[in-house]
Parts: sequence; C-alpha cells; structure tokens
Amino acid sequence: MSANTFGILFRFTSWGESHGPAIGCVVDGTPPGIPLAAEDIQPWLEKRKPGQSRFVTQRRESDRVEILSGVFDGVTTGTPISLLIRNEDARSKDYAEIADKFRPGHADFAYFMKYGVRDYRGGGRPSARETAVRVAAGAIARKILGPEVVIRGALIQLGQRKIDRRKWDWRATGQNPFWCPDARAAKAWEGYLDGVRKKGSSVGAVIEVIASGVPAGLGAPLYGKLDSDLAAAMMGINAVKGVEIGAGMAAAELSGEDNADEIRMRRGKPVFLSNNAGGILGGISTGQDIVVRFAVKPTSSILSPRRTINAKGENTTIRTKGRHDPCVGIRAVPVGEAMMACVLADHLLRHRGQVGPGPRGKPGG
Amino acid sequence: MSANTFGILFRFTSWGESHGPAIGCVVDGTPPGIPLAAEDIQPWLEKRKPGQSRFVTQRRESDRVEILSGVFDGVTTGTPISLLIRNEDARSKDYAEIADKFRPGHADFAYFMKYGVRDYRGGGRPSARETAVRVAAGAIARKILGPEVVIRGALIQLGQRKIDRRKWDWRATGQNPFWCPDARAAKAWEGYLDGVRKKGSSVGAVIEVIASGVPAGLGAPLYGKLDSDLAAAMMGINAVKGVEIGAGMAAAELSGEDNADEIRMRRGKPVFLSNNAGGILGGISTGQDIVVRFAVKPTSSILSPRRTINAKGENTTIRTKGRHDPCVGIRAVPVGEAMMACVLADHLLRHRGQVGPGPRGKPGG
Amino acid sequence: MSANTFGILFRFTSWGESHGPAIGCVVDGTPPGIPLAAEDIQPWLEKRKPGQSRFVTQRRESDRVEILSGVFDGVTTGTPISLLIRNEDARSKDYAEIADKFRPGHADFAYFMKYGVRDYRGGGRPSARETAVRVAAGAIARKILGPEVVIRGALIQLGQRKIDRRKWDWRATGQNPFWCPDARAAKAWEGYLDGVRKKGSSVGAVIEVIASGVPAGLGAPLYGKLDSDLAAAMMGINAVKGVEIGAGMAAAELSGEDNADEIRMRRGKPVFLSNNAGGILGGISTGQDIVVRFAVKPTSSILSPRRTINAKGENTTIRTKGRHDPCVGIRAVPVGEAMMACVLADHLLRHRGQVGPGPRGKPGG
Amino acid sequence: MSANTFGILFRFTSWGESHGPAIGCVVDGTPPGIPLAAEDIQPWLEKRKPGQSRFVTQRRESDRVEILSGVFDGVTTGTPISLLIRNEDARSKDYAEIADKFRPGHADFAYFMKYGVRDYRGGGRPSARETAVRVAAGAIARKILGPEVVIRGALIQLGQRKIDRRKWDWRATGQNPFWCPDARAAKAWEGYLDGVRKKGSSVGAVIEVIASGVPAGLGAPLYGKLDSDLAAAMMGINAVKGVEIGAGMAAAELSGEDNADEIRMRRGKPVFLSNNAGGILGGISTGQDIVVRFAVKPTSSILSPRRTINAKGENTTIRTKGRHDPCVGIRAVPVGEAMMACVLADHLLRHRGQVGPGPRGKPGG
Repeated sequence: MSANTFGILFRFTSWGESHGPAIGCVVDGTPPGIPLAAEDIQPWLEKRKPGQSRFVTQRRESDRVEILSGVFDGVTTGTPISLLIRNEDARSKDYAEIADKFRPGHADFAYFMKYGVRDYRGGGRPSARETAVRVAAGAIARKILGPEVVIRGALIQLGQRKIDRRKWDWRATGQNPFWCPDARAAKAWEGYLDGVRKKGSSVGAVIEVIASGVPAGLGAPLYGKLDSDLAAAMMGINAVKGVEIGAGMAAAELSGEDNADEIRMRRGKPVFLSNNAGGILGGISTGQDIVVRFAVKPTSSILSPRRTINAKGENTTIRTKGRHDPCVGIRAVPVGEAMMACVLADHLLRHRGQVGPGPRGKPGG
Repeated sequence: MSANTFGILFRFTSWGESHGPAIGCVVDGTPPGIPLAAEDIQPWLEKRKPGQSRFVTQRRESDRVEILSGVFDGVTTGTPISLLIRNEDARSKDYAEIADKFRPGHADFAYFMKYGVRDYRGGGRPSARETAVRVAAGAIARKILGPEVVIRGALIQLGQRKIDRRKWDWRATGQNPFWCPDARAAKAWEGYLDGVRKKGSSVGAVIEVIASGVPAGLGAPLYGKLDSDLAAAMMGINAVKGVEIGAGMAAAELSGEDNADEIRMRRGKPVFLSNNAGGILGGISTGQDIVVRFAVKPTSSILSPRRTINAKGENTTIRTKGRHDPCVGIRAVPVGEAMMACVLADHLLRHRGQVGPGPRGKPGG
Repeated sequence: MSANTFGILFRFTSWGESHGPAIGCVVDGTPPGIPLAAEDIQPWLEKRKPGQSRFVTQRRESDRVEILSGVFDGVTTGTPISLLIRNEDARSKDYAEIADKFRPGHADFAYFMKYGVRDYRGGGRPSARETAVRVAAGAIARKILGPEVVIRGALIQLGQRKIDRRKWDWRATGQNPFWCPDARAAKAWEGYLDGVRKKGSSVGAVIEVIASGVPAGLGAPLYGKLDSDLAAAMMGINAVKGVEIGAGMAAAELSGEDNADEIRMRRGKPVFLSNNAGGILGGISTGQDIVVRFAVKPTSSILSPRRTINAKGENTTIRTKGRHDPCVGIRAVPVGEAMMACVLADHLLRHRGQVGPGPRGKPGG
Repeated sequence: MSANTFGILFRFTSWGESHGPAIGCVVDGTPPGIPLAAEDIQPWLEKRKPGQSRFVTQRRESDRVEILSGVFDGVTTGTPISLLIRNEDARSKDYAEIADKFRPGHADFAYFMKYGVRDYRGGGRPSARETAVRVAAGAIARKILGPEVVIRGALIQLGQRKIDRRKWDWRATGQNPFWCPDARAAKAWEGYLDGVRKKGSSVGAVIEVIASGVPAGLGAPLYGKLDSDLAAAMMGINAVKGVEIGAGMAAAELSGEDNADEIRMRRGKPVFLSNNAGGILGGISTGQDIVVRFAVKPTSSILSPRRTINAKGENTTIRTKGRHDPCVGIRAVPVGEAMMACVLADHLLRHRGQVGPGPRGKPGG
C-alpha cells in the first residue's frame, strides 16, 4: 500500500517527485462557499520557498500554485480542488554521480528495498520539495478554520542552540531567516549556521507550532485523538524524529501535582492555570492553546565522505554535492503550521459531523 | 466523528468503559489458518493486569479474554475475531463524591465539552482499562508477525530517575515490577516510588519499545509512513505526551555527520553502523531494529487537593480517592509493545498487498 | 482484506458466525445525547426473527440484544455502542453430513477457495443470521434520522408473482407473513409458497424500500454518491443479485422526455411531478422519496439432490436438510430497511460535517 | 463530505469539471515495476472519446493523457501516478441561457441544494466528461491484473431494442458505433437512434461487462464483498439506475433448483455448469466469469421544452441546446469496463494483503 492521502473529511492527496515536471495535490472535502483564489495560497508558499536566504537550498523555484478545479466564481464549490506547482529548477545531472549509491540517512535505501526501483534524481518522492503541497493544502485549511484560529510556528532550537523562552516575541519570527521568536538568539545563529554551511555540514532543529482560538471538543477518541493525529502529521514531515504535545517528553519528570493543569472559571469560561497538556486532554481539545513541538534531524546530504554501499551491494563512500539546506528544519516551520491547520480543519468537520457545530458541553449549562 | 478503529488491513475496533459490564474489540483482517486460542492472548494480558504489585492500581480484575468468533477448529478463519473481557471489580461508588467535578489533567472535562454528557464512573471510556483490548489485539498481531519479529518494551525512566543504558539486560525486565532493563536502577526505584505512593502522588515515565527482525520495506509513504503510524499509535495511548523514533528529540542536536547511519555489507546483507534512524528512513523500515520511545505523564488522580470547576461552572477543589497507579507508565509497557505489534502487522499486510511478500529490492540483485 | 465495517461517520463493525456463541456489532459515531435502550432496538429484531411463520426457517432464536457500552443514564455518550445477540438454537449436527461438500449456490465454496479453511457449521460467517446485527444497527440509525424520516420496506414480488402496485397499502405489510403491501396478492402467495416449501424447494423475491422525509443534499459525490452507497448496501445483503434506484433497469427503455422528472414550486418548495430518479440526482438526495429495489435469489439450501464436488475434489451430489427459509427474501425486508437507515444516517452526518446542518441551497433564496 | 477517492489499496482520486482547464486523477497503490507510458492509457481513452460518431456528443476533445508522476525509466515506482487531461473544447456560452434554470433529470438541482453554489457551465463536476479519468485509471488497473484477466463490455440494449444473445460475437463490438455484440441488431439501431437524435430526444441503454480469468478468492466479506463493490462502482457511473450481477433482478423468479449453479471437477479444476451467480458467491469470486449489467437512463439534456424551476424559485420551462449524446449509454461501455478493472485490481491487492497471492483453498488439496 502506498498511502498518499491525509485526513478524513478534509483531506488532501499528494503526488509528485522533486525532479518530475510538477508536484501537486487534490484537496477534498472543503465546505462550499469559501472565497478562494491562488493569491490566498501563495503567501504561505512564499514562506516555505527555497532560495530565500543563504541558509536554505539555492534551488530556484517560483512555486506558483495553479488552481485547476473546485473553485467557481471565486468561491469553493464543495468539489475537489486540484492544485499544481511546476518544478522549474530541477538539475538531475547533479545526481548522476551518486545515482548508484545510497546516501546514509536518506530514504533512497529504504525506497529501493521496498519497491525494487529507484528514482535517483534528487530526493525523488521523499524529497522535501513535496512539502510545498502540504503548505498549499494548509492554506485552504486555514480558510476553513476562519480568522479566530491563529496558527503560528517558530524555530526554538538550532542544533545545540536554544532560544530563551522569556524573550519570545512572535513579531521576531518574521524578521530573521530562521522564524526564530528570540531576536537575540537569531542574531547569534547566523554566524553559527554560516560555519555549518561553509563546512558542507548540517544541523537539526526543533520547531514549535501553537494554535490559538481552537474551540473545545475537537478530537475523535480513542483512535482519532487530536494529539494522535497531530503526532502522525508532524512525524510524517520529512526528517522529523520526535513529537511532543505540551510538556512533551519532560512530562515523565513531573509529579502529578505539577503536571495537572488546574482549572478556574473566568468571565463565565473555564481557564487552565497552566498548559502542560498542550491544550489536549483525552485526545480532545480543551479550548486552551494547542502546543506541538517536533525535532528535525540534520540533512543527510553533506559534503564529508561517508561510508555506504551501492545498488550492486558493494562497499563504497559518498559525498553529496547537490544544492541542499544546512538546516532543513528552517523550512519545516511553515510545513508544521500547515499540517496543524490540516489536522484541525479535518477535526472541525469531523466533530461537526458527529456532534454538530461547536462544543456540546458548557460548564454551568 | 468517534473513531474507534485502529489500522487499515489488520485492524481492531475497540469498545467499552471502565465501569460498564465489559470491554472488548473486534479484530479484523487476520490472515486465515493461524493457530489461535484464548491461551495465546492471556499471557500478554497478565503482563498488563492491575493489582500485580503495590506500584499499580489495586483494582482486581482477572482479565480473562473470551474469543466469540473468527476461530474454528483452532485456527483463524479470516473472519472478524470478537474478543470480550468482563469488568469484575468496578466500584462506581468510589466516584460518587467527585461525580460533578472535573479532575485536573483528566479527560473528563474534554469529554464533557465535546459530548455534553458525562460518564463519571471511573475513567469511563478514556480509562486506562481500555488498553487491555489493545494488548489482546496485539497478541494476535504478534501471531501474524511470526517468531522472527521480537517486540520488547522496557521502562527506561521513572520520574527523574533514568536507567544506565550500559546496564541494559532484557532478562532483567521480567524480574522487577517496573519492566526495567537495569536491575540496579529497578532496585533503587522501589523506595522512590514507595515514597510517591505513600504521599498519594504520582510520577511519569519513559518507555522504550524495540522490534527486532522486522523486514525492510514496511511503511506506506508519504501519509502512512511507518514512523508516522507508530507516532500516532503511541501518542494515542493514555497519558502519552511525547514520542521519539531512534535519536528522537536529540536528533536536533546532531550534526549531519553524526546523525547519518553509515552502511556496510556484511555477509551479503546491508548493515548500519549506528541506529539514529531507529530503523526507519523515509517512513520505511530498513531492516534494523525499530526503536520507539514515549513519555507518559503522571496520573492525574492524586490525593492532594487541586483547584478545579464543576459541571455547574463553579470554582471548587478536588481530591481523587479511588484506586490508582502511582506510575501509570509501568502498565504502559505491554501496551506500547502491543501497539508496535499492531502497526507492524498492519504494515506487513499492506506491503504484501501492494508489493508482494518481502522486500522487493536487494543490493547486489 | 476482510472488511467488516460499514459506513464512514456512522459505522458499524459486525462479527460472528451462525453457529458460534453469539453475533454482534460495534456501532460507532452515534451523536451523543440520544435516548437509547435495548427496548428501542428489540422491535426491529422481532420483525426479522426466524420462526415467526411457516414460511421462514424454524430455527428458534429469542434474538435479545444486549447493549454493552456507549450508553449511560439512558442516553448515548458518543462512544462506541457494543451490541451482542446470543445464538441459542444452533444445531451444528444438522450439517455433519454435508461438512465436506460444497452447496451449489452457497458461499461455502468461495470461502474455502479464498481462505483455505472452512466453518461447515450452518452458514458460518456468510449466514443470513448475521443480518440481525444490521437490523440492530439500523435501529440506532433510525434514532439519528429522527421521526421525520420514515423508512418502510415491502415484498413486491415472490418468485414470479408480482403485486398490483395500484393496491399498495402500507398497513397491509404488517398484516401478512410476507410484508406484502397488496393484501390480495399476499393471500394468494400463501398457497403458492406452501407448495414451494413442501417440495423442499425455494423461490426468490423482490423487495422495495422507500425512505420519506429525507432532506435534500445527502450524498458525497463522486465516489460516495447516495445511490452508489445504497447499491453497495443492498447488494451486500445475503443473496441479493440486483439493485435498482427509481426507474431502475427499466430506465433504459425510457425516452429523455419520459424519464426526466419535471419540477414545480408548490407552497414555496420544489416538487417533482414524477420520481423516475428515485429521489436521487447526481448521487445527491433531492428531497423526494428515496426508492430502492433489490432482488433476492432463492435459498441454495434445498432438498433436491444437486451435483457438486467435495473438499477432496471429487464429484458428488448433495441434499441440504437443515432448517431453511423457502423464501429468504421475506426476512430481507427489515434488513433492507436497516441498511437504508444506516446509509442515510451516515450521509446525514457526512453532509453535516462538510456543509453544516440541512441543505445549503434554497430556490428563491 | 465530498468523497472523490475510489478504492482501498488500488485507488484513484478524481478532480475536475467539464468546463474548467482540465480534469485528472491521482492513482495510488500501483505495484512497482510495471511498464507504463501514456501510450498504454491512450487507446482506452480513444474508446470513450466524444465526437467519434454522430451518435455521441460532438464536443471535440483530443483527450491526451499526461503522466506527471509515479513513473521513472518506463516503469511504475510504487508512488502516486498523477494523470492530467486538458479540456479543449469547452463552450460555456452554450449554457448562458440556462444558467439560472435547473434541468429536469440533471444533477444541477441536487448540487445547488447540497452546496448552495452552482457551476452552471455544462455538466460541471457531475458531467460525463469526468468519466475519462476513470477510463485512464482503469487502464492502469488492467496492467495490474495482467493479460490473464480479460475485461470486455457490450451494449446489449438500446432504448427498447435488445440484442439476440445467441448472436453474441465479441468481435462485432469493435465494428459498430455502439459496442454492440450482435451485428444485426447494431445495424438496426442506427436508424432507430438517428430518429431519436434528430428529434433532439434521447434513450437509455443496458451495458454488460464480463471479466474472464479472474482468480477465485477475490472479495472482502461482509462489507467489502466483490459484488457490493461492483454495484457501488457501476451505480456511481453517471446516469446509472440499476445494477445486476449474474441472473440479476430475474433471480427473483428462479426456483432454488434452477438458480444454484451445479459444480463438477474438470481437468482437476472446479467448473460450474451455469453462471446465475455471475461468478460471485458470498461476495467472493469463484473463478467463473464475473458478469455485471447496468442500466443507463436517457440523457436529461433534450430539446423538448420541460417544466422546471429556476434558482429564484420560479416556475419556468427549459430546452437544453448544448452538444449532447442521444444515448449517453454508448460511451458508458468503456467506463463500465474501467470500473470493473479498478474494482478487481483493488481486490487482487486486498486479497494478497490478507491471504497472500492466489486462492488459498484447492479442492483435492
């Protein structure tokens, strides 16, 4: 089974390789009557686009999205929306030299083992290029969620360098090439990452995505829990090796007293005094901020020679010379936001299907 | 939408509440001709059963599983297998006092918000009791995987106490009440957890589950990746707040050189010189050990009074007096193993469906 | 793949064999807060129950349904509802003689070919007995649809004997053993079917199921069309060989002028002047009556010796002596109603998920 | 919910409107290593293409398919295959006059009611134009099934004119504009349909699709039965109102003796002496020919004025002047073949997933 569809009611089906003529997706389940044009999607693609700073791959793609169906007279019709993005700057020849070798840490070995065939041009299907279609689908998901739901991502760790959370300022994220919310840390990261880049090396990163304004009640327990679906969504992004909700792995170290977020009524509404839960209890949103973090490993495409094998089953070494990201985690920020949007939009519709619009319960009646 | 089915080809549908007459599940998609009896499932349930040491809830359940369908003349017929486990020691009255209050850190608030109704008896649907059916389904999944695939779990951190990984001995896991692979650490944990228990407090834990002997090629990219499905499976276990594959969150701190697992041919087969990938690249198994970790938060049911609200929307406080686990993470070990088994069995069938049995590729042809 | 789950948002997962200890299903996705007790389900099971007249199998089953989960304080909680019906009168020995032989027209040959194993006790999994759980699930589906939606089935043809549609009277269906809406035809059918029964033979039947009060807008084109899902639902009932919507197969013979149902406004609402469409256009309900018909083949269990083979691959003959229905189509009437209810309830929730409650469009605004 | 994906393991996701820039689909789950090029798909599209005779719509489309992904070095890679077909001859202005009116018998009313928006250009999403992508997906499905499985369709009834089944000759289907297997009937139909066409009227048709060489064992009972999935597939084709398997609706009239297909061993293999079952028992293929029939209603777009309403909710009349098929059933022949191929390919993979390749059972061991 190849499984290229994400979501249940709001869902997208992705296709395309990094070095084919185009990539794209079909977005299905969008409610009708929502104003939509390519211009609504494009800004989010710009955030993820390669070639925007010296810290990301120098591949040049305009990443213009075309809407081929599902929109008429400026609004969604409720039928599937086909999105297409052409590949413009695919240099397959960069890869000729390594066509026969498996790159350590790269998916090419696993694809070869599974399928017995190999598309050696760039990343092929598992390329980070595919994440552009997630961002496009996420833009439509945001439209469904409406302006009350605000989804923002930030890079909170670059290699071993962490931000100072007390310095968190959302405005800063748009003012440095890292989506870093700590302006001072961002400044320091520039030199650090330049060093990495010049060595032809790479580093990992941690991204945090926060959704505010999410109504209580989203999530489909026990096997479509909101946190479970978010974990799948984030772990499914290229190179992600860990996912946390709220307190995350550190929850193991807390006592029951410290962990449980106490509740108070404020202006007629329940409010939690802390958010170790990351806005989710029992797999259902509580109305607090949804907080997800994920770790991205360093790009496997590096200049240092590494020991590997080739398709003939011989030992050899490899150096990857193509155009790559010294920290692929940077471009994962808008991708994480998009996946958050897609999961929430799907659950909004799923909840409405079973229960009707909005939370059914109300403390105090 | 309520979503109580897990898996695609090998799948189970779970039902039941902690204080109803029974819990159970329907396991669908099992290949025919596999020898199966209740005795094959029971040992795994014993591992998870409450009341086995002073460190887990004192609720007494025999957890006898009954097979109601899908097996004839001692073998699976390929039709759905209905499993039923009766609830024997449900003391709903324990909960009378808190029937109206929401427990901080517990799912009852979220269920009330979503559904507008509330089953206040014990955990209700989101109770850890439901995990018994996952263990039962997992026992069948192991049968599908066959003896070559060995799945083992261990508790590697209890609260702030971590094991010494150099002392890892799988035999130790069966010789202490924690499934701890480090005998010395386990000894020290007893006194520590006794202290927690006597205070009526609780702590979290980290569990590691390793699957050996998994063939290369399992995983359904891009949206049914093996790691993505494992993340969903583990995050969906009660109280889990973080999931890691291989190097996990720490992958962010690695350089590209350190992270990428080098490959060599050994006796005609590819072998990785390290396992930061946790046995998965591009969402597909590589043939190395599959390594998953997850963090369980401390039980929310504690004796200390906590601030909360009630269903009337009034501020109040709560103390939870029922029978509870000082570390619910202990019993999560067999549950994590079971979910690993279910994910792998499902992907084994899914891979066989699309590609045929076994990996299609072979280095060296 | 074994696929024992029906529906998307409102769904049930069926399990059980005709000669095992019990049959049952798990109903998932029910909205919360709906009053539900076993008494709400039982009357529909009574309609389908065997042994109620000499025209159906004499197997005696009380068919008492037990609700094991998903209901608390008399209302649905939104969590899965587990239903269980015990088998009481399973006489496996009836089948000892034919254990090794395949019954022509019966599923046992196909099950053996597919799975390589064989449950020779009665019908095993493909037995008509399983349809009891569909009826039980259908009773819950009716609750979701509410009293505005009225679903009624009728036997309109028994073997070669058809009703006179001008004599159609719904009240008659409850007053004869055939669910026949034409009292006079029903009277004549008694002698006819007695003749069939005494010969140990069997005949087929045609059932018509009509749903009134269905709102416009249900259906999920293009691959979850309402008529498509109804066709699957009805064709999936045991022994069904044909399904028609509205004019059905006869639509082929109509001219475009005769076929297209003209539309007029009446009291502010669109009304169709005929219903060749059977209430569905483009896979979406129009607000008119939904009309489905299906043909049930005669039971394959007959007394006349028939040529067949056995599991050893030898030619032989067979006579089936167990207790059987001379016209299994009779008991298919409540089953057809139940499947209609399940499909409509599922589409009601699916529509509400994507579009919100009710039709979005309104002629005249 | 909008549901534009068909199939489980082998699946396609369709998109596009009749008057947008293009239509297409994403085919997922194709096994790797299958030789595939646009040239393999094109011949099937030619069969369905409009404008090939005076009996089908005069819209001129080259219907050239482009493969945008999933194929490398001439073979499938196991990743999603994106297919695109441009719309070249969309004359939206033809529809300006009727933009505001609902066409009796057409889906436009139902779409408006469901979604509240309306794409009045031609058929929009429910246009028969979309069936081109089904044919394209079906061409890939045939590749998966291999040359042993032969799928052929035929028009066996045009309006009230039926073929003489004794004259059935498959070669004839390619030698007349109707895919009619009875050469003499085809000749007579020309004059008949010319009369219909000149009046601006339309007629319905019955199509029969037969698959030979299908292995025993395909089908996923009880809710993914092969006949159930075929019924959904055929009923989901535009304008279909009835579906039959084997004896179909006529099965109701048979006695148990006449209906049950007797079995004999011939050259070591089980053979049925008749095929009332249409090759399917209990929802599982038996190894006999799979026989499906479906009725297509006459096109709703006719020249005679018909009573209807408009979007303002006013009574009015309508005449449809666009370019249309006097018998849309003709072009449904290749569509029915394609849907048969898709269902069989999906079930081949699903069976292999659960049970392994080929039938598990073998009479005589």
